[in-house]
Order: sequence, then structure tokens, then C-alpha cells
Amino acid sequence: MSFIETKPDSDFSIHNIPFGIISTAENAKPRVATRIGDFAVDLAILAEAGLFAGVHGLNDAKAVFSESTLNHFMTLGKPTWTATRKHIQKLLSASEATLRDNQELRQRAITPVAAVKTHIPANIGDYTDFYASKEHATNVGIMFRGKENALMPNWTHLPVGYHGRASSIVVSGTELKRPQGQRVIVKGEAPQFGPSLRMDCELEMAFLVGTGNNLGEPISINNAKDHMFGVVLMNDWSARDIQAWEYVPLGPFLGKNFGTTISAWVVTIDALEPFLVPGPVQDPKPLPYLAESAASAYDIKLEVKLKPAEGTKYSVISRSNLKYMYWSFAQQLAHHTVNGCNMRAGDLCGSGTISGPTEDSFGSLLELSWSGAKEIQLEEGITRKFLHDNDEMIIAGWCEKDGVRVGFGECHGKILPARQ
Amino acid sequence: MSFIETKPDSDFSIHNIPFGIISTAENAKPRVATRIGDFAVDLAILAEAGLFAGVHGLNDAKAVFSESTLNHFMTLGKPTWTATRKHIQKLLSASEATLRDNQELRQRAITPVAAVKTHIPANIGDYTDFYASKEHATNVGIMFRGKENALMPNWTHLPVGYHGRASSIVVSGTELKRPQGQRVIVKGEAPQFGPSLRMDCELEMAFLVGTGNNLGEPISINNAKDHMFGVVLMNDWSARDIQAWEYVPLGPFLGKNFGTTISAWVVTIDALEPFLVPGPVQDPKPLPYLAESAASAYDIKLEVKLKPAEGTKYSVISRSNLKYMYWSFAQQLAHHTVNGCNMRAGDLCGSGTISGPTEDSFGSLLELSWSGAKEIQLEEGITRKFLHDNDEMIIAGWCEKDGVRVGFGECHGKILPARQ
Ligand SMILES: [Ca+2]
Ligand SMILES: [Ca+2]
Ligand SMILES: [Mg+2]
Ligand SMILES: [Mg+2]
Ligand code: NI
Repeated sequence: MSFIETKPDSDFSIHNIPFGIISTAENAKPRVATRIGDFAVDLAILAEAGLFAGVHGLNDAKAVFSESTLNHFMTLGKPTWTATRKHIQKLLSASEATLRDNQELRQRAITPVAAVKTHIPANIGDYTDFYASKEHATNVGIMFRGKENALMPNWTHLPVGYHGRASSIVVSGTELKRPQGQRVIVKGEAPQFGPSLRMDCELEMAFLVGTGNNLGEPISINNAKDHMFGVVLMNDWSARDIQAWEYVPLGPFLGKNFGTTISAWVVTIDALEPFLVPGPVQDPKPLPYLAESAASAYDIKLEVKLKPAEGTKYSVISRSNLKYMYWSFAQQLAHHTVNGCNMRAGDLCGSGTISGPTEDSFGSLLELSWSGAKEIQLEEGITRKFLHDNDEMIIAGWCEKDGVRVGFGECHGKILPARQ
Repeated sequence: MSFIETKPDSDFSIHNIPFGIISTAENAKPRVATRIGDFAVDLAILAEAGLFAGVHGLNDAKAVFSESTLNHFMTLGKPTWTATRKHIQKLLSASEATLRDNQELRQRAITPVAAVKTHIPANIGDYTDFYASKEHATNVGIMFRGKENALMPNWTHLPVGYHGRASSIVVSGTELKRPQGQRVIVKGEAPQFGPSLRMDCELEMAFLVGTGNNLGEPISINNAKDHMFGVVLMNDWSARDIQAWEYVPLGPFLGKNFGTTISAWVVTIDALEPFLVPGPVQDPKPLPYLAESAASAYDIKLEVKLKPAEGTKYSVISRSNLKYMYWSFAQQLAHHTVNGCNMRAGDLCGSGTISGPTEDSFGSLLELSWSGAKEIQLEEGITRKFLHDNDEMIIAGWCEKDGVRVGFGECHGKILPARQ
């Protein structure tokens, strides 16, 4: 229990203690914070007040928490992340007087989240997107290539992934213009230029690398998890018509790189540990460099909500779970580096669209509307196949077990009309 | 003419004036330099001596040239790049006394390149690789997918490209370990794990973005060139067996991201201006956002040289030219941003493998050996299909016209044995 009020259904109980970047009206300089309940706690101010003295490996807390990204903190390594989070849990607990009884410091360091601006949590050097849900890969494969070629022969042998665009990753709450580009309106005819007519979302989660590896030195599956700093929600916005025309043979490009939204608060791997569950059975058995001995899937409930431009409320259009992912985050990281590819602090790896086995658990409008063949029913009698201008989306995610809840807040975005 | 000796066949005549990053035994801190003949000129030292006073837009030359990448200089914009290069040409010219007659300053600022270490010239936020040679796309298409599906229907409508890995871009001279990964040894059987058996190079050039664009605001084809800072040689090392197994449907990944080598000296767009020539005729006519009104191809002669581990010398295995590229750099940049994707200073865009129309102008071993069907003849009676351990490669490139030569030096790399 914290001395700061957290409602029972809050994603940000004292069991969470995520990390993020904030600025406020009083101080426009982005710096490191945690969140508890509906409050952001400025860690730079706590550090300045000397509250991190003696935390393992956190020798210059004030400098580390005054930076505008988490990258410096990430480079300090897993033992320091763990010690810091535990220390913050102690500082915020109801039984600890240090901060609780220092009204002046509380006043300066603790701000309602409604009065806080959140920023992209890391300088993301490279962003990779995987394709790790078998259901999604199969569904999309059927629609793009037909039933025979839906799941490629490599899919069950390795976590298929591709490089995405790092520059256009934005934080929850950012509005994005509908992209324009080439798309084929009439099959077999030449492409036309114009705004995407099949604007879609992709329900994803992503991990942020904390400590990387040198070029040429793979990260072993056995300690892959210790290299991961934490996890966020991700909406991999996708212009399906642009993508369908451009993606052969080198993969998605302009259909994706106009914007990708991530949630603001990075939930640590430590906080997710209690929610580990076994993942899907893998058949064929993965090669030794991908073989895991312990449970490595996370039971994270996920929701996709859509508020249509002409409506007044959000409708839940999908309920899924990260545990459906066939390839684990650890397998993704081990695979990504097995050829020697180097990761750096802040690198982001997306899960791929997290579709479950049932129709109401599909993670994209493409799947929910079956490529536009059917209408998705929203509240107030409104329907959608793909996104209209000024539609808004929220992805939410949380873990719950034995009365403990750890969640991600929300990943929100709005599609503005295309540029004139 | 410069007061510094430049041999007639030097890539680095006073007509060049490239930018790069160096360090020396006396000063291990990387900083900005130019190169003339076989000498590096430390621009941070010239700036400290006040030699850039009054150059348009270069208000804090000492700070800008003391940085460890070109990114800050890049953000100053085209008029400043142009003014700075012209100013350096004047400072280095035989008729200008300022530096010529200052022996003490010359002693400190000018170092033989043999005594200089070069570093990656920019902090590359995002790296994109295009696929802009019709000959290469056709050749590879035939080998990977058969004659019928060689060139995809989209290829003549847009510059096909994909996102590459920025973290593993290294500067000329860096040695790379042979990557390991999954590859199918016997067609139709399960993949095996091991070192790549089909290690290849790709002859490419790449432009570095100087000034970027905001998310949602495309760069028009009409001023695309003014956003480009300069051009380098690039070797897009490729493990063909890993690539062939993994690349469907999302594109190349571990077959490429173990390392990409670029040359150290960035030759400016200004320096290349005299060598503009019309590119290939484009049929069908590109959509308006890709339509160009002036010559936009560069006549840059290219050579690929291979020194086999058991040999004593380099053999030229390919002679090509950047002008063979079907899609121009300007078209690539306009296409890349037309959906609103944002570019940042230092972003790198590769041309794709530059294969010419004849067999001796192919830009990869895959094409030169026709997927291993024939031996590539080297000097000393040695042959190759793909790269052996400890083989070395050099890509060279230069322009020549009316007795003026502007070149890129070399892009060198060596493949070490796979990690044990
Ligand atoms: Ca995705
Ligand atoms: Ca390439
Ligand atoms: Mg995206
Ligand atoms: Mg490469
Ligand atoms: Ni001259």
C-alpha cells in the first residue's frame, strides 16, 4: 500500500512502478518520472533531495533522472533497474516516512497526471517489428496471398521480423495525418496517388532493450530477459492499400512508416514477472538457440477501443492477450542477435499484431472486417470497416492475479484528414 | 590548385572537399575534418584559429566542428554547407596566404591520412535501402522467384525500398564476422543452424540526409536535392542463404543486419553537381510526385575489388556506374516522405545494388556467379562463388570530367571467420 491513493482498478498500483518521461507547466524540460495511481512522481526532484543515496549502481541519480530519455538509466543494467524500482516502492509505501512526511518535497515532486505532459520514453535507435501471432500471420496471409500460401514455411522455425522506422514512433496522444501514397483501386490497373482508403491499426506490445550487445556477439536465449528493460503498448498504424501494393518483395515500407504509437509508461520486466505463463506449444521444436526452459509468455489482457468521428463513445472492438504470441520476447531477442546484430539501449521490438484464436480477439480492422467483407458493429448503431478521418483509438492492457493489478495505461491515437 | 600536393588521379582534389570524422594519436576525440590529397585537415583546429569567421550560417564553427558526428553541421542547411565548402576551397587554394603561410597552424591542423583514424561520419537515426537498379532487381528476381515473377508489377511505378538496421552500419576498414543463422541446405528440408555458406557483397552508394522534415510534411521532388548532404560508397553485406529462407513475406532481416559498411568521406551534393547526367528513360511515366524536370543521375564510375584470403592482390570483379540506377536519389527521397514519414539529419538511404546491363557490371557475387552456377575468375588462378573467411573487398568510386576528378576513396571490409 502506498500513501498515495490508488484505486483498486488502477493500472499503476505500487506493484507497478513504471518509468517514463514527463514535463510540466512549471518545468518544460523533460525528465524521468514514475507513476502511481493518477500521479506522476518526478524522480529528478527526488534524486536532487538525496532520496536515492546508496541505491546499487545508481551513483549519479540526479544526472540520470534529469535526462530527457531513459537511455542513460537503461545502460546501468538490470541489477540497478531492479534496485531502483524496489527503492521507489519503499519510498512510496505507506509505512515509510521519508517522503510521506515531507510535505514540501511531495508538493514539488508529485503532480496529477492530468497536469503532466508525457514524452517518448527513449531515444529509439532501431525499431524492429515481429510477426509472432500465428493467428494474425495466418489471417493476413490468407487475405494477401490466399489460403495455400498463408503461413510461409519459415514461420514455425523462426520469429519472422523486419526493420521499421524509428523516426516516426510517437507517444500516446499524438495525432497523425492519414497518409497518402500509391494504391491500386482496380485490380490489375495502374496505381493512383491519394489518401489511404484502408487505414488500419495493429494491436501490439513491444519491449525496449535496456542493455545491448557488441556487434558480432549474440545475446543468448538464457539471459535475453535480463537485457530487456520493459514493455509498452503499441499501435502499428497500417495503410493496407499502400502496403499491399508496395510490400513485394522487400516488405512493408510507406504503409507503416508514417507513424507508430507507443504508450508513455514503460512497465518493467520485473513488474511483469508474476504474470509469466507458458506460451503456445511450439511444433516443430525450435533450434537450440531458440529453446527455452521456463515459462516465457506474459498473461496480459488487451483491449482495442474505437471512437468513431460521428460517435460520442468508445466501443471495444477486440479483446486479446499477449500470451497468444507464438514466439516469446526472449526468443525474438535471441533470434535478432544470433547473427551478431547489435542492440543498443532504447531499441524497440514490437510483438507483431496480437490476434487470438476467436474472431472477437483479432488485432486489426483488416482481420475484424475480413478485408472489408463485413462491417464492424460499434455502439450508437455506427459501423466501420477501416478508419475514417477523426476516428480515435485506444489500446489498453493490464495483468491481474491474486488481487494485484499491473497495467500499461493507454495507447491513444487519432487519425486526422490527409494533408491538402 | 591547392598548396597541398594532390596527385592527378587523387579522388580528393580541391574540387572535392568532402566531410568526415577523424581522430589522431595526439587527440583521440573524434571531430570534423576534410580531406585533400593524402591529407586530413582538422576543421575544429581551423575553427579555433578563427578561420571560419563570417561564413554564412556557421556561427559557432568551433562547436560544430568539435562534434563527433556531422549531424550538427547538417542541421545548418544547404546554404551553410555550400558556403563552408567554398570557404575551405579558398583556404586551401595556392593563391590564399592565410593557411598556406601559417606553418604552425598547418603543422597542427594537417595530418597524413595514414596517421588518421576515420569514424562513422554521422549518427544515423534511420537507414533505408532501396532497390533501384532494374538489372539487379531482375537478376535477383529470376534467381529467387523465377523468370515469371522476377520484376514485380510495382517496381516500375515506385522506388521499392525497405528499412535496414542503423546500429550495425560501420565505417570502411571495419572487420566483420561471418554471420550464423538458419539456412536450408537441402531444398524442402528443415533449416539448419550454422555460418552462412553464401556470403556476399552488394555494390551500393548511399546519400545522407542533411535537413529533414516534420512528421506529416513530405519533401517535394523539386527540393529533394537540397535536403541531401552528400553521398558515400556502401557495401551492403548479404548472407544469401539466411536471406533466402527468412525474407518472405516481410523482407530481408538477419541476412543483412549483421553489418553494412560505408566509406569515411562524405562527398557533397555540390561537388557532384558537374557530373549530373540524364538517368534511364522511365516507362511508365512516374506519377507527378515523382516527376523530375532536370537530369538527376550521377555519372560515378564504380569498381568492386576482391582479395581472396589465399591471394596477394585485389582483382577487379565488377565495373559499374551509379547512372544505371533507374530511380534517382531525389525520387527516392520524395517517395520516402510522400506519406509523411519524417527524415532527420544523418539518415542514410542506400541506392540498392548497382548492377549494369552487362555481366561484368553486376554488383553482387550472387549475380556474378549466377547463384553459384559459375566461378568468378580472380588473378593468380584463384576463383570464387561467394566469400571465404578472410577475404577482403574494396568498393571504389569516382567522377571524372574535363580533367577534374572527384572521388570517394574506398569502402573496405574483411570477412572474419564465424564466432566459435
Ligand atoms: Ca506490425
Ligand atoms: Ca541492398
Ligand atoms: Mg507503424
Ligand atoms: Mg547490410
Ligand atoms: Ni583545378
